[in-house]
Amino acid sequence: MVERFSNRLAREVSKKGAAVVGLDPRLEALPRDLARNAPPEERILAFYRETLPLIAAQVALVKPNIAFFERYGAAGYAAYEETCRLAREAGLLVIGDIKRGDVGSTAEAYAEEHFRHADALTLHPYLGSDSLQPFLRRCAAGDRGVFILVRTSNPSASEFQDLPFEGGNLSQAVARKVAQWAADSSPDEPGFSSVGAVLGATYAKDLGPYRELMPRSWFLIPGVGAQGGEVADLAAAFDTEGQGALVNQSRGIMQAFDPGDEDWRQKIEGALSHFVSELSSLCKQVP
Amino acid sequence: MVERFSNRLAREVSKKGAAVVGLDPRLEALPRDLARNAPPEERILAFYRETLPLIAAQVALVKPNIAFFERYGAAGYAAYEETCRLAREAGLLVIGDIKRGDVGSTAEAYAEEHFRHADALTLHPYLGSDSLQPFLRRCAAGDRGVFILVRTSNPSASEFQDLPFEGGNLSQAVARKVAQWAADSSPDEPGFSSVGAVLGATYAKDLGPYRELMPRSWFLIPGVGAQGGEVADLAAAFDTEGQGALVNQSRGIMQAFDPGDEDWRQKIEGALSHFVSELSSLCKQVP
Repeated sequence: MVERFSNRLAREVSKKGAAVVGLDPRLEALPRDLARNAPPEERILAFYRETLPLIAAQVALVKPNIAFFERYGAAGYAAYEETCRLAREAGLLVIGDIKRGDVGSTAEAYAEEHFRHADALTLHPYLGSDSLQPFLRRCAAGDRGVFILVRTSNPSASEFQDLPFEGGNLSQAVARKVAQWAADSSPDEPGFSSVGAVLGATYAKDLGPYRELMPRSWFLIPGVGAQGGEVADLAAAFDTEGQGALVNQSRGIMQAFDPGDEDWRQKIEGALSHFVSELSSLCKQVP
Repeated sequence: MVERFSNRLAREVSKKGAAVVGLDPRLEALPRDLARNAPPEERILAFYRETLPLIAAQVALVKPNIAFFERYGAAGYAAYEETCRLAREAGLLVIGDIKRGDVGSTAEAYAEEHFRHADALTLHPYLGSDSLQPFLRRCAAGDRGVFILVRTSNPSASEFQDLPFEGGNLSQAVARKVAQWAADSSPDEPGFSSVGAVLGATYAKDLGPYRELMPRSWFLIPGVGAQGGEVADLAAAFDTEGQGALVNQSRGIMQAFDPGDEDWRQKIEGALSHFVSELSSLCKQVP
């Protein structure tokens, strides 16, 4: 029998903490002398071939955002596949940040393809249950997970996600459904399920109320660093064992150097250990 | 100066009508003897190489759904690019059914990549304006268009899209923003803008009210045929000149034959002309 994603996640987080490193490759931010005359997808892969072992030494998860790979067409898409493969080979769990969302038969195609590469996926909620079922089935029956967009980290998130309904706003209505999908996916097991939620660090004050709405969901929290969120504000997302939340940082780690720096590896390692210890102190503060 | 997407669309629709052919490649539904021993992406391309000229002879637009290409990984992604190229070479306008939606910097990457291949794109609204701006800029300043998901054709669309607010439901709130983005994208020109909306044919009774909310947006209407929507119910989406709406059919055209049929080309041509004449009669009925 395969191990559930949520169980594997809990084990990894207890070993290495809640840090997730976002992989959003930008050519202009790569080390200047690394494969400098190679095509974009080769430069990206050269960078990750060197850095994924450094990342795996300190953290448990990476989150490649497929947009920054697709940017280079089919060759970039192949680099996404290879990045996921290299990450898993290094022992990392991979959250494929694909943010897909389509009608049922199309969702089947996305689920089949993207769960080949990643342990978990980010998904759009707008189309409702039937657009998520092909993914949720893999959470219930297997070793895969999802993180559904509930409250995103961008400034205009409020336009729709804060629209007031009777009983709350839209993101809270989505959160209630996530809680139901989470409960349905592992009705007989206590603890966290493999159906999680994306909640932006830029709206940290709402994490407590979201936790009440989604007691059994892992929170994937992007928006720390370049987007303005602060690690110190995220305590409400964690349980008393420091479980239940994952905090993503992308640019703050993978662009912790200038492209001309020769000591870029050391700077990435330094940024990683700073991030890991910041999160570790935070979890110790959780009452 | 480039021609605006909305103007080109109006011209094409006045020549060839409002039909859109959805390209959702399924290996099991391809003609059995066409490139039968080739890898999936070659079989898909062989099919479209033969059929895109047949399609272009009768209709103005195709809508490839990238999920069914991504299904075959990087090679499938390359087949999507090539399908878009072949379609445009045949004189067709291409709506890339990608349903992307991510924060601003990521949206830039998606816009740059996907407008290389398609004239217009489908997009998720959940993250609000800043997630759409990189696309909307190309609608305002250039020859590209977008169709934002407002009311989708799937059964569980109602879960979130029908949530009641003061002044309407969620899909109507999205529709009001689409109207604003449409107005902002071409403030000095009358007529339809390049900022459109996706509205499922399966909720045809709501098309009139949506038209009132979005007077300047092209409607892209999927869900006819296999999903249960009826062409005859869609009159309210069109203006008195038969403009303003596009109706998509996928399986009803591109799977209008059994894989073993030798006359599959004729069956596709027959299904195309039936669809085109159905739409043409509908537009003549518009008062």
